[in-house]
Amino acid sequence: MKISFLLPFLVDHFGFSDSRTFEQRYLIADKHWQTNGGSILFYTGNEGDIVWFCNNTGFMWDVAEELKAMLVFAEHRYYGESLPFGEDSFKDSQHLNFLTSEQALADFAELIRHLKETVPGAENQPVIVIGGSYGGMLAAWFRMKYPHLVVGALAASAPIWQFEDLVPCSVFMKIVTEDFRKSGPYCSESIRRSWDAINRLSSTGSGLQQLSKTLHLCSPLTPGDISNLKDWISETWVNLAMVDYPYEANFLQPLPAWPVKVVCQYLKNPNVSDTVLMENIFQALNIYYNYSGQVQCLNISQTTTSSLGSTGWSYQSCTEMVMPFCTNGVDDMFESYLWDLDKFSEDCFSQWGVKPRPYWITTLYGGKNISSHSNIIFSNGDLDPWSGGGVTKDITDTLVAINIPNGAHHLDLRAGTALDPSTVLLSRLLEVKHMKKWIADFYKNAKV
Amino acid sequence: MKISFLLPFLVDHFGFSDSRTFEQRYLIADKHWQTNGGSILFYTGNEGDIVWFCNNTGFMWDVAEELKAMLVFAEHRYYGESLPFGEDSFKDSQHLNFLTSEQALADFAELIRHLKETVPGAENQPVIVIGGSYGGMLAAWFRMKYPHLVVGALAASAPIWQFEDLVPCSVFMKIVTEDFRKSGPYCSESIRRSWDAINRLSSTGSGLQQLSKTLHLCSPLTPGDISNLKDWISETWVNLAMVDYPYEANFLQPLPAWPVKVVCQYLKNPNVSDTVLMENIFQALNIYYNYSGQVQCLNISQTTTSSLGSTGWSYQSCTEMVMPFCTNGVDDMFESYLWDLDKFSEDCFSQWGVKPRPYWITTLYGGKNISSHSNIIFSNGDLDPWSGGGVTKDITDTLVAINIPNGAHHLDLRAGTALDPSTVLLSRLLEVKHMKKWIADFYKNAKV
Repeated sequence: MKISFLLPFLVDHFGFSDSRTFEQRYLIADKHWQTNGGSILFYTGNEGDIVWFCNNTGFMWDVAEELKAMLVFAEHRYYGESLPFGEDSFKDSQHLNFLTSEQALADFAELIRHLKETVPGAENQPVIVIGGSYGGMLAAWFRMKYPHLVVGALAASAPIWQFEDLVPCSVFMKIVTEDFRKSGPYCSESIRRSWDAINRLSSTGSGLQQLSKTLHLCSPLTPGDISNLKDWISETWVNLAMVDYPYEANFLQPLPAWPVKVVCQYLKNPNVSDTVLMENIFQALNIYYNYSGQVQCLNISQTTTSSLGSTGWSYQSCTEMVMPFCTNGVDDMFESYLWDLDKFSEDCFSQWGVKPRPYWITTLYGGKNISSHSNIIFSNGDLDPWSGGGVTKDITDTLVAINIPNGAHHLDLRAGTALDPSTVLLSRLLEVKHMKKWIADFYKNAKV
Repeated sequence: MKISFLLPFLVDHFGFSDSRTFEQRYLIADKHWQTNGGSILFYTGNEGDIVWFCNNTGFMWDVAEELKAMLVFAEHRYYGESLPFGEDSFKDSQHLNFLTSEQALADFAELIRHLKETVPGAENQPVIVIGGSYGGMLAAWFRMKYPHLVVGALAASAPIWQFEDLVPCSVFMKIVTEDFRKSGPYCSESIRRSWDAINRLSSTGSGLQQLSKTLHLCSPLTPGDISNLKDWISETWVNLAMVDYPYEANFLQPLPAWPVKVVCQYLKNPNVSDTVLMENIFQALNIYYNYSGQVQCLNISQTTTSSLGSTGWSYQSCTEMVMPFCTNGVDDMFESYLWDLDKFSEDCFSQWGVKPRPYWITTLYGGKNISSHSNIIFSNGDLDPWSGGGVTKDITDTLVAINIPNGAHHLDLRAGTALDPSTVLLSRLLEVKHMKKWIADFYKNAKV
């Protein structure tokens, strides 16, 4: 059973002159919750609709009975229906000023406090925060900043080190490339060659026309679209690597099992004409965008489910969440791209009227110096490009890394299926073992 | 050698639409600093002029050589010369919006990062935060929230539990009373009886006149002043208890050694007429306000040094720093006063246009649930009324309490003198022992 609530929440937790409030959405499921010896699993919502995350975090539902757990899914402000200023929320930098990770963590803190004060039986129960991707970062950061409110955190596929120069900016795209390289002969090589093919074709009017037709695009390409086209195709490969799950699934898009392998079946031969190569590329893209077979044409302005809040995330990327990415076309299958903070900063300013502070996240959350914290599980799948910015080695006995061979983006948080590889089954067992220890320690200390 | 610097600092660390900056003052002394195996002692400035705190924190100067330490004293925003909007800083709630403990901690974080990046040799050195009173709270909270930047904190006389219902609201004034009770026969009893004497005298015009004369007030009292008069006298006793140091000192005011004992010499006989009692009270007050003998009359609108920023603190008390106090006139020597949050809240709103959030500090900093943190020394003197809201028992092996019998408000942070009781000498030795261990651990871990 699932119920959704709304609460009046402060827009600004960190100042007192602004007393405006908004309604924050969250979901509760208490079917398996037991007030005697139970626990509260709290999903720290990330950049999207919380119902969608709730439906894609079957792990919590799967372990609820074993942990006698109440499940709470908290929506992140400025996403889904938790818009501080309704339709005006993204209007300008004034309205966006309260979209930060700090405010979101404070929302979660207030919500946990509210639940403990208002739900009979919740007060003296251990809370564990759980999140995936940016939500995983928030879960880890929440345990770091509010350890008095939660006994531990499961941070799945959380790239907390994808900032400043904590990891090489090239690592992300290298992992994407490696996924494609391993998934079929000449697959990554075919993609590497496609960029020049696009450049050559798009250099003439007739080539452009042909490219539009070959890729079944909804709108014919103009010369000004080529950069966007290549970004769109790149992002498609990135997304495919992220959701390279071992079974048919619908996370970013409806897809077959092991979608990168399926895509690579069309990309076996790099030594073909530009047009044939692009026909192959289309077949590959068509797996991602048209697995249902219902789509008439491909739209280069969309790459993923609308449940993700791309507007909000674009702003966050331009303020706190400044993640450097780069490619060189040699160690990866993409066109060469240098990370240029100055240009990035200018683009952010012209788009949002704000300048990024790339150093702030590490100043605030500690970068690699986090060993004084405790009770955080960092899980990462090796297929997941975000694992490059994640914690993949134990830091201390209680800051542990769980690596999932053949795992894609937070596979461990998804509902168990018969097709799960043994690696993810083992990871989930370990995660539950840690969580049970945190819960047991909580009750042991409460008795003293 | 002491140098003072100014830096352009962000007014708002927690939002991106406001890019205004201000100049933050800090002091550096590096006479004893050694780049090889040294350390950085960082004073987390509180509600006053940083030069004044610097001059009253001799302990840091005394231990600088032993710890090969650079000394840094950072001024708290909105105090001293670190005013975000100059003269307009206290104009209204819009300008005061950035006066919070979170912003101050972020200032300290940015300053530490700046020093590590710009002072050659500072990068790979351990930093210890030190503070007294509210500055001690900031030191403790800084270690809790930014443990990646500092190896430990010395929180002297830091009443981190003087919030909500973490300690009884009566504890503070009980300790004040106990100090006076112990410092001379009938001393607290004389003060307890003085309130009714004031009430009786002020009920007639001639009584008022006489009272003004007896107390040598600069301006004659009107009936509307009586409440302020009693508050002023109460605050004087509180301040005397706080600075009941074993030697002549000038912290809040120039005072003799053991000033409460000196004051109590005038308050030995409670069984006298109202007028005689108030003459005795005047003699007592005169010790506090006129130890120099230069003062012509007493001014009930001033209780302490102007180096303390009472305007800023009044605002902070009305927003985050909501500390409940109460008295009953039986267990303490004051008139009965009930803590009334609603009334307090209304008064704050009419004064500052903001409503307090009394629960926020405990939500943010954990209240009594702080055992997951490490490397914080909480020192308290038993004469200090603030010890009632302090941590006076060890929480874990690394969250330790040091209690100083016969110690007043952060006596341990003051420069050593020949008149220091052995209790404070021992406390300082223990503090240095802990700090040396933190520093040694830092260098041991750095080598691994």
